[in-house]
Amino acid sequence: MQTLLLNSDDVDENARTGRVIDAVEGAFVAYERGDAQMPPKSYIDLPEYNGDFRSMPAYLDAGDWDAAGIKWVNVHTDNPADHDLPTVMGTMIYSDPETAFPLAIMDGTALTMKRTGAAAAVATDYLAVPDADSLGIIGAGVQSYTQLEAIAEVRDIEEVVVSDLDEERVARFVDAFDDEFDVRAGSPTEAGHCDVLSTVTPVEDPIVGPDDVAEHTHVNAMGADAAGKHELADELLLDATIVIDDHEQCTHSGEINVPYAAGTLTDEDIYGEIGEIVVGNKPGRVGTDGIEGVSVFDSTGLAIQDVAAARVVYEYADDNDNGYPFDLLGLAE
Amino acid sequence: MQTLLLNSDDVDENARTGRVIDAVEGAFVAYERGDAQMPPKSYIDLPEYNGDFRSMPAYLDAGDWDAAGIKWVNVHTDNPADHDLPTVMGTMIYSDPETAFPLAIMDGTALTMKRTGAAAAVATDYLAVPDADSLGIIGAGVQSYTQLEAIAEVRDIEEVVVSDLDEERVARFVDAFDDEFDVRAGSPTEAGHCDVLSTVTPVEDPIVGPDDVAEHTHVNAMGADAAGKHELADELLLDATIVIDDHEQCTHSGEINVPYAAGTLTDEDIYGEIGEIVVGNKPGRVGTDGIEGVSVFDSTGLAIQDVAAARVVYEYADDNDNGYPFDLLGLAE
Repeated sequence: MQTLLLNSDDVDENARTGRVIDAVEGAFVAYERGDAQMPPKSYIDLPEYNGDFRSMPAYLDAGDWDAAGIKWVNVHTDNPADHDLPTVMGTMIYSDPETAFPLAIMDGTALTMKRTGAAAAVATDYLAVPDADSLGIIGAGVQSYTQLEAIAEVRDIEEVVVSDLDEERVARFVDAFDDEFDVRAGSPTEAGHCDVLSTVTPVEDPIVGPDDVAEHTHVNAMGADAAGKHELADELLLDATIVIDDHEQCTHSGEINVPYAAGTLTDEDIYGEIGEIVVGNKPGRVGTDGIEGVSVFDSTGLAIQDVAAARVVYEYADDNDNGYPFDLLGLAE
Repeated sequence: MQTLLLNSDDVDENARTGRVIDAVEGAFVAYERGDAQMPPKSYIDLPEYNGDFRSMPAYLDAGDWDAAGIKWVNVHTDNPADHDLPTVMGTMIYSDPETAFPLAIMDGTALTMKRTGAAAAVATDYLAVPDADSLGIIGAGVQSYTQLEAIAEVRDIEEVVVSDLDEERVARFVDAFDDEFDVRAGSPTEAGHCDVLSTVTPVEDPIVGPDDVAEHTHVNAMGADAAGKHELADELLLDATIVIDDHEQCTHSGEINVPYAAGTLTDEDIYGEIGEIVVGNKPGRVGTDGIEGVSVFDSTGLAIQDVAAARVVYEYADDNDNGYPFDLLGLAE
C-alpha cells in the first residue's frame, strides 16, 4: 500500500469540475445534517514573517461515500516580493477514514481554487435565476478562472465581463476563455449587471455598491478571507438575501465580518446557510417563497470542501494511473 | 524549489539521536520561554471505525533556529486485526516558517518514536542520578527501542532489563541490543529496580507499584495517551516528584489523568514542567535543593517535539542528498 503523490498539474487534471461541484454540494449537505466534523481552523501567527499558518482538518459522511483529511495552508503576504513564491501555498493529506492510511498527498493550492469555484457554482445553482447566461467577474487573479469554469457547469453562460485594474491580468483571462465564451473587459458596474457576479479581490474598502448590480444579480462574494476585508457596500448587503457557508467563519473573516463587527449587520439580516438551502430546509431562488432581488453568497471556504474535492482528485487519479505512488510509511509489500 | 519526501527508512537514518535530543530539549526551552506556538490538538472522532485523527500544528523559535509544521496522526485500534495496518500512522509536513514552503513531507510514525525517545532522554538527563548505569523497560513494543537508544546517549547505560508478557517481543528486543548492552528479560519489579525505568505500555490498570522501584529510580511514564490509561499506582505517584511535559495534555490524557480526574492527585502534587527544569527555574536531580527519591516524568508528547525532530531529519537528509525531491506545488524552475 502506497501513498499517491499528486502535484499541481495532477490536481488540475483530476479535479473534474462537475464531479467537484457534486462533491462540494454533498459536503454542504453532510455539514447541514450533522454528518461532518470540522474542528475550528487552528492558526499559527508569525508577525515576524508577516504570515500565518492554518490547519484545516475535516471528516464528512455524504451517505454514499465518506472522506477525511487535512489541509495545511498559509498566507505570507511578502512572499511574491521577497521570495518569488506565492502568498498562499497549501498541502493536502487525504486519508482513508476507515484505517487512516494517507491515500494521497496533493498540492493544496490548486485544490483550493477548484473547491472554491465549486462552492460558487453550488450557490449559483440554487440562488441565480434559472436562465442566467451572463457572468461578471471582478478581480482577474488566480482564483477567477475556476469561478467561470465551475459556474458554466450550472448555468449556460454565454457572456462574460471581467473587471480588474491590472490590464495584463484582464488580457490573460480573456485569452484563456475567448474560444469558449463571449468574454470582454468591463467596469465593475458592467460586471455587476450580469445575471451572476463573482467578486474575487482582497480589498478592504468595498468596490461594489447597490447601483453596481442588476435587479436580480446573484453575487458570489469570494474575496474576503480575514477580519477587515469586504468587497460589497453595506447598503448592498443589507438589501440583499444573504447566504453564508458557516456562521463562525463568515462573521469572523467573511464578506459580512466588517458590518457584523460594527453591529450594522446582525444575525437577522442573514437568510441562512447554503447547506439549509441545498437540503431544502429553506427555499432558494426558485419555487414558492423563492428568493427575489439581489442575493449574496458569503464564501469563506470550509475544510469539508477541501476533503470532498480531494476525494474526487484521488479517485480519478487512481483510476487513471496518474500521480506518483510512494511508500511513505514503509508499508508496501 | 522542491519538497523533499522522506520515507520511514529515511527518517530512521536521518533522525540522529543526539541531535534529536538536543532539538527536543530546545523545544522544551522555547515552550517554557513563551517562544513556541502550539494550538491544542484537534480531534476527529470516528466511533464507527473505532478510531480517531489528531492534528498537531506547531511553531517554535529556539533562538538559533526556528521551525514549523504539522503532524496528522491517528489511533485506529482495529487496524492490526482487520486491515494488517499499524494502529498509529503519522504524516508530517515540515515547513519553512519564513515562507511557509513545505520543505519536507515525512513518515510521522518513525518520527514519533524518535522524538518520544528523545523526550525521555531529556527528562532522564535532568532527573536521573548522574551515575545511572541500568535501565528497565516495561513494554517491549515499537516505542521501546528508541527509549534505550536515546537514554544511552545521556547516561552510560550498561545493564538493561526488559519486561513484557509477550516473550517473542522480549526476545526481539534482546536480540536487537545484546551486542551493545548487558540486556536480559526480567519481571516488572526487576526492571523497576534499575536506576532508570521507562514504562511503554497501553494499560488501564497500573502495573508498577511503590515496591517495584528502587529508592532513587527515575521513571519515564511514556505509555498513557488517553483518558483512563495509567501505568503507575497512585501511591507511587503521590510519593514521587512528578514532572510533566504539559499541564493540559497530562491532566487530560497523560499518566496522571486518572488520579487527577478522581481528585486523588492535585496540582500541588505536580513538581513542575520539564521546561522549567531545563531552563533552570526549578532544580533537577543534582544541585542545591535537588530532587531526591523517586521521580516520574509524565510524557504525553508535544507537537513542538515533532517539529523540532523533523527539522533534524530534514537538515541531515538535505545535507546528505537523502530522500526524494518532488515538485508538489509546481514551483520548480
